[in-house]
Amino acid sequence: MSAIVPTFVNARALGEIFAPTVTLAHGGGGKAMKNLIDDVFIRAFTTGAQGPLEDQARIDLCELAARGDRLAFTTDSFVVDPLFFPGGDIGKLAVCGTVNDLAVGGAVPFYLSCAAIVEEGVSVTLLRDAATSMAAAAAEAGVKIVTGDTKVVQRGGCDKLFLTTTGVGVIRVGLNLGVEKTQVGDAVLVNGVLGDHGATILCARGDMMLDAPIESDCACLHDMIARLLEAAPGVRFMRDATRGGVATVLNEIAEASNIALEIEEAATPIRAEVKGFCEILGLDPLYLANEGKIVIIAPPEEVEAALGAMRHHPLGQDSCVIGRAVEGEPGRVVMRTILGGRRIVDMLVGEQLPRIC
Amino acid sequence: MSAIVPTFVNARALGEIFAPTVTLAHGGGGKAMKNLIDDVFIRAFTTGAQGPLEDQARIDLCELAARGDRLAFTTDSFVVDPLFFPGGDIGKLAVCGTVNDLAVGGAVPFYLSCAAIVEEGVSVTLLRDAATSMAAAAAEAGVKIVTGDTKVVQRGGCDKLFLTTTGVGVIRVGLNLGVEKTQVGDAVLVNGVLGDHGATILCARGDMMLDAPIESDCACLHDMIARLLEAAPGVRFMRDATRGGVATVLNEIAEASNIALEIEEAATPIRAEVKGFCEILGLDPLYLANEGKIVIIAPPEEVEAALGAMRHHPLGQDSCVIGRAVEGEPGRVVMRTILGGRRIVDMLVGEQLPRIC
Repeated sequence: MSAIVPTFVNARALGEIFAPTVTLAHGGGGKAMKNLIDDVFIRAFTTGAQGPLEDQARIDLCELAARGDRLAFTTDSFVVDPLFFPGGDIGKLAVCGTVNDLAVGGAVPFYLSCAAIVEEGVSVTLLRDAATSMAAAAAEAGVKIVTGDTKVVQRGGCDKLFLTTTGVGVIRVGLNLGVEKTQVGDAVLVNGVLGDHGATILCARGDMMLDAPIESDCACLHDMIARLLEAAPGVRFMRDATRGGVATVLNEIAEASNIALEIEEAATPIRAEVKGFCEILGLDPLYLANEGKIVIIAPPEEVEAALGAMRHHPLGQDSCVIGRAVEGEPGRVVMRTILGGRRIVDMLVGEQLPRIC
Repeated sequence: MSAIVPTFVNARALGEIFAPTVTLAHGGGGKAMKNLIDDVFIRAFTTGAQGPLEDQARIDLCELAARGDRLAFTTDSFVVDPLFFPGGDIGKLAVCGTVNDLAVGGAVPFYLSCAAIVEEGVSVTLLRDAATSMAAAAAEAGVKIVTGDTKVVQRGGCDKLFLTTTGVGVIRVGLNLGVEKTQVGDAVLVNGVLGDHGATILCARGDMMLDAPIESDCACLHDMIARLLEAAPGVRFMRDATRGGVATVLNEIAEASNIALEIEEAATPIRAEVKGFCEILGLDPLYLANEGKIVIIAPPEEVEAALGAMRHHPLGQDSCVIGRAVEGEPGRVVMRTILGGRRIVDMLVGEQLPRIC
């Protein structure tokens, strides 16, 4: 702005009045959209090592094929509310979530796409913060955001910002993870305390008027998973315990492998703050979402190696065995409680927390 | 439903009362979500030739690498309003849009992912219709929808249904399309009448109280483009003229290639109904969105071959030359009007039509 500013106007107030917001024109495909994309996304995602974002990215197939014989391909939309929360934000979540989806399938993640749906009236600063956070998470994870799309909908047409990331990676040669490989005697492992993300989002919404010192565990786990697979190449299966929490993943595993799982309550790591929070609200922490935790099925002879590798990694220091695959009713998950009782851990039927990721 | 229905209840009314709608529980990651995804998406997308949808799809890299040395990767969100319109719907649009993005880059499309963001309260029938339409468009295009995601947001959190599709294809060996290859003397071609999609959406919204017999041109163009590239392998560049219409694409080409383009108004094919519609509303049809039209830059010696190949295809019967790359101010697009005058065709500055795709 080169206009003359009257001296009685406070510069900060002026900044707020003129703070640019997204308008419908930014979604029209014309000059305004090009400027917004250049300003927010291209600026954030274009690094020295990478050319400008293209509508269609071109990826060297020979380079990919040299890494393995199977391409991994996965997509996730992110609609988390609020957009920014302790430990993360929608941008970091959108990168880590898709990187983790690739990694738990045994793939090395390489490329991401990012599609944004923006509500008219959202501040450009907010968009820029989310894009910067995506770029930082991608750089840390060693993946490139190579293509994207931006749509703007009218005020009330969506809630501020939704992101959809799609990931491409290459599955490690010789690795064949499969839930059907689970056998009686296999151990169930997790890489740390459970429920932090879900509890953080609930706190951050402020509806509960609770204020707990909890942070989301949102993190890209591909590096820890690489160490794990090196140390324990016989791992049967992994899944990230996001929506629906560990309880949902356990039920999916039990059902798909047609085997019974038994979990020890005393061995299940949950932060005291999260436990307390759940008690007040009547929630079961096993169903709370995680964004940096995976469930691993490992053969008994590789449990020590797996735990050793994960505990050496900053994102797996509290790794532990929480249960086993056992003889029992196929498809059922049972928890042995601290008091010595047994209760069924069922699949979540209703909704615990909407818009958790 | 096996419950006994009281005879005084009209079966149709009962169907309406119990017509299932999407609830927040469907987004919770638990049993309800699994059932919805199985019922709507897996049922629609799983064909005899394809296994069930996985959270992470595994694609044979050797098979892809045998087709070419460059992977094409592109993403688009679709927020069109209304969801169903003459000639198409959001599902068809989401498949064709991404297939076309791959095809204009010279790629053969192979795989799609589909991420859906659904508003609480939307009827399951609507979702099923959109998924069925996606499946039909994908089958016709010979692409497979191999992975997906579903999120549900609370009532008012989004407008019914948004879809994001991401596509993977392989770029033809030896083909190197690039806007920078445009030279003075090159011809500018389109594959048919312009503006049908934009005019259809405006009509379908009903705000204008106009009722024109227009249908969206929404279609997958990869097959026509394959024929075009066989007949005219020297084609410099192609782009689909979606948001912002042909005028925007022409400006992007002129700017990126640093060349002037001159368009003949008399040669620009626009349906009489669309022309009339635009006159009433004061719109310029050159800025109206298309979903089955591309702009092609071809060297003069291949124009006849290109036109011949496209006119032989059902989606290119009205293909024609609309202008040329000329000596002139670099980056400028000029139209020679029917009356013999010349006017600048500028990049769209504001918003003509929000949520057109």
